[in-house]
Amino acid sequence: MTKIKPRTLSGFMELLPPQQVCFNLIAQKLRESFSLYGYTPLDTPLMEAAEILLAKGGGETEKQVYRLQKGDTDLAIRYELTASLAKYVALHYSNLTFPFRRYEIGKVYRGERAQRGRFREFYQADIDIIGDGSLDVLSEAEIPGIIYNSFTSLGLTRFVIRINNRKVLSGFFEIIGEGGKAAEIMRVIDKLEKIGADKLKLTLTEQLELSASTADEIIGFVTYPGSPFEVFEKYRGKNEVFDQGADELAAVAGHMADFGVPSTHFKIDLSIARGLDYYTGTVYETIMTEYPEVGSVCSGGRYDNLAEYYTEKKLPGVGISIGLTRLFFILREQGKLSDSIPAAPADILIIPMTDDLSHAVSLATLMRSSGLRVQIYGEKKKFKHKISYADKLAIPYVVFLGEDEIKNGTITVKDMTTGEQTTASPAMIITGLEEKLKPSRTIKPIHD
Amino acid sequence: MTKIKPRTLSGFMELLPPQQVCFNLIAQKLRESFSLYGYTPLDTPLMEAAEILLAKGGGETEKQVYRLQKGDTDLAIRYELTASLAKYVALHYSNLTFPFRRYEIGKVYRGERAQRGRFREFYQADIDIIGDGSLDVLSEAEIPGIIYNSFTSLGLTRFVIRINNRKVLSGFFEIIGEGGKAAEIMRVIDKLEKIGADKLKLTLTEQLELSASTADEIIGFVTYPGSPFEVFEKYRGKNEVFDQGADELAAVAGHMADFGVPSTHFKIDLSIARGLDYYTGTVYETIMTEYPEVGSVCSGGRYDNLAEYYTEKKLPGVGISIGLTRLFFILREQGKLSDSIPAAPADILIIPMTDDLSHAVSLATLMRSSGLRVQIYGEKKKFKHKISYADKLAIPYVVFLGEDEIKNGTITVKDMTTGEQTTASPAMIITGLEEKLKPSRTIKPIHD
Repeated sequence: MTKIKPRTLSGFMELLPPQQVCFNLIAQKLRESFSLYGYTPLDTPLMEAAEILLAKGGGETEKQVYRLQKGDTDLAIRYELTASLAKYVALHYSNLTFPFRRYEIGKVYRGERAQRGRFREFYQADIDIIGDGSLDVLSEAEIPGIIYNSFTSLGLTRFVIRINNRKVLSGFFEIIGEGGKAAEIMRVIDKLEKIGADKLKLTLTEQLELSASTADEIIGFVTYPGSPFEVFEKYRGKNEVFDQGADELAAVAGHMADFGVPSTHFKIDLSIARGLDYYTGTVYETIMTEYPEVGSVCSGGRYDNLAEYYTEKKLPGVGISIGLTRLFFILREQGKLSDSIPAAPADILIIPMTDDLSHAVSLATLMRSSGLRVQIYGEKKKFKHKISYADKLAIPYVVFLGEDEIKNGTITVKDMTTGEQTTASPAMIITGLEEKLKPSRTIKPIHD
Repeated sequence: MTKIKPRTLSGFMELLPPQQVCFNLIAQKLRESFSLYGYTPLDTPLMEAAEILLAKGGGETEKQVYRLQKGDTDLAIRYELTASLAKYVALHYSNLTFPFRRYEIGKVYRGERAQRGRFREFYQADIDIIGDGSLDVLSEAEIPGIIYNSFTSLGLTRFVIRINNRKVLSGFFEIIGEGGKAAEIMRVIDKLEKIGADKLKLTLTEQLELSASTADEIIGFVTYPGSPFEVFEKYRGKNEVFDQGADELAAVAGHMADFGVPSTHFKIDLSIARGLDYYTGTVYETIMTEYPEVGSVCSGGRYDNLAEYYTEKKLPGVGISIGLTRLFFILREQGKLSDSIPAAPADILIIPMTDDLSHAVSLATLMRSSGLRVQIYGEKKKFKHKISYADKLAIPYVVFLGEDEIKNGTITVKDMTTGEQTTASPAMIITGLEEKLKPSRTIKPIHD
């Protein structure tokens, strides 16, 4: 038979078992964190009618969408989780209770040119709170609390959550007489960190045709070195939107300590705009302080109309998205994935030393009923080969079961790390192993 | 703005939050069971190059595959998990250790006509053990152990795992001189339960042109009412393949008690053939005894060549697949999903009774650090509306935090089921709630 060369599509991440275990642990930690804040899990379809998924339309992204035809239905595969959420909330509106908090960790697809660290199939981990008609600013303060808790639960320590408020920026542009160019200025400001202040000024004056003094005032505002509330004083009382934004920022910042976010991990940064016009209030970015060059690994913001393409209902919300596959890739590249997490498929390998396997099988059943993960090595191979199997898979304990042990009602366990061997009753060995394995159950996936 | 009517594609399951929680719990229980037997989780891409996914070819299924073109790549979306596993093992062969045990719980896609209980997007939960060159029969005995353990962990009690061995059937057909028609006869026998013995005889004689006495001998064999090992005696020693199959069946059955499978939940059934020629040894079906008409909810078998389309390596294996979405749908239809699992998004709703929310936020942070799932109701609504929010979401405990409580350093918690209210220190309330919530953490998703 002619063989087809096995391959995985470029841009599609396929992990070897130990890495997969680590990835799954990261996803699990995120789920646990999101649950602590009362978010419910959703699992929406990967495919939707194209008209639904592309309702929002929009240039670049639309080109990347995987589309297909089945029968006479025009289908599209999701490229983000937000459109699916919007449809879900609009469709199931009468069965949901608001504010509606949900998280979804799922694969999305973008047919971009595959390159290092860019994926065509990747996981996003999204959380959103959706209000019915209105949504209190407290929800905007909750989000950094969740980011802090979930990142910390992964083992990450060196990150900063940066926030801003789009109302502050829009109000400010109104005050300085450039309200008409607000959206464009925000898109440019967003690049400050990449291009620097000088280049930013050039872009503002040449590309957006602002005066040099206006450009200076903008740059002075967004890079103000002291507390942002100092610089706000200069503009207070001149524009309602500005004042509202400043109050919201104060409210959100004021709640940080109560949400358990230390001041070292939180910063108001007036230069953050998040390109999308979609956002209308607080916006978030999360930077890993050792790798600022990778940009934000968790971003989002407050929006006013989640589902405007599907319903007349006003559904304001706030949410963030973690690019999980990309985050995993970065952490792996930087050697940050813990090698002490139990990546082995089993805690114990039972090696039967007799032809009759029934004692080995019974012992495995007994151990499993105590929650231990057990494999039996049943292949007819040399002893060396069996031990090397445990070694290669990093299975931490091997149990030998020979004639003597069976006669005496004991088992012998070998600690594969220390080489130490112990012979005792199955009950004693099981209790001992449960105790020894406990610390490995709480190891965080990332060492930072 | 013109609105697009929100809808979900027919055949694509989208669950409301309480059902989603139940579905996730079922998947989680399966993961835990599979892990106890030393299976490692994989998460393979949903899309593959069409040539890879369709290497095996084959009529009906191929028509159902979702295919698409992106750039100049011909892509296909997976319709089962086996082809992905075969490619994975062939591609990563040198990085894997054999026998290789993996599980994968993932979505697959089939563009069939959508009908009640049939899905176009659905979850399969697969486990497989792959050997390198050979694989001991012990692995074939392990599979019913895992089925029993995982089904029981879900809360299912009324099911029977039926097994047979394809070698017994092939050998038997050789012995009675019908070896040439073995594959066709097996496909017909597989329908015995549906069509009955009379219709089966008719099909064997008319369609397959067997003599009446041969048909009778086949039917007598596959429906033998006593122990199959009795009927085997008549044919033993006449055909090597038959004898080998009978020995394997005896070995597998002999291990059941040691694997913890009670005799009530396990049965050798010589009429099970599983249509696919792919299987070469033990085959499995799992029937829910109350709903035999839905057929097998967990099937599989032993095969000799997992990855023959991609590699010269001989990779025998054994595996099963659970149609998870279909199983969930059946259990839901039959009212078998437990309504006592904690489907609420939170354990506790904090209702602040003061304008200053800082105490509420701090209390929520404290409770979360004890692992309690907490929401704060921050919207400015009437008290009745806030209580009704907890009610609708079935949040079991509501905490009130007013001026008095803040002054006294206490909190008041209301048990929403009994209506009972308790006022005490936060630490005491937290300890009490942890204790009260414990039983809900171990509830099984299915009551049977």
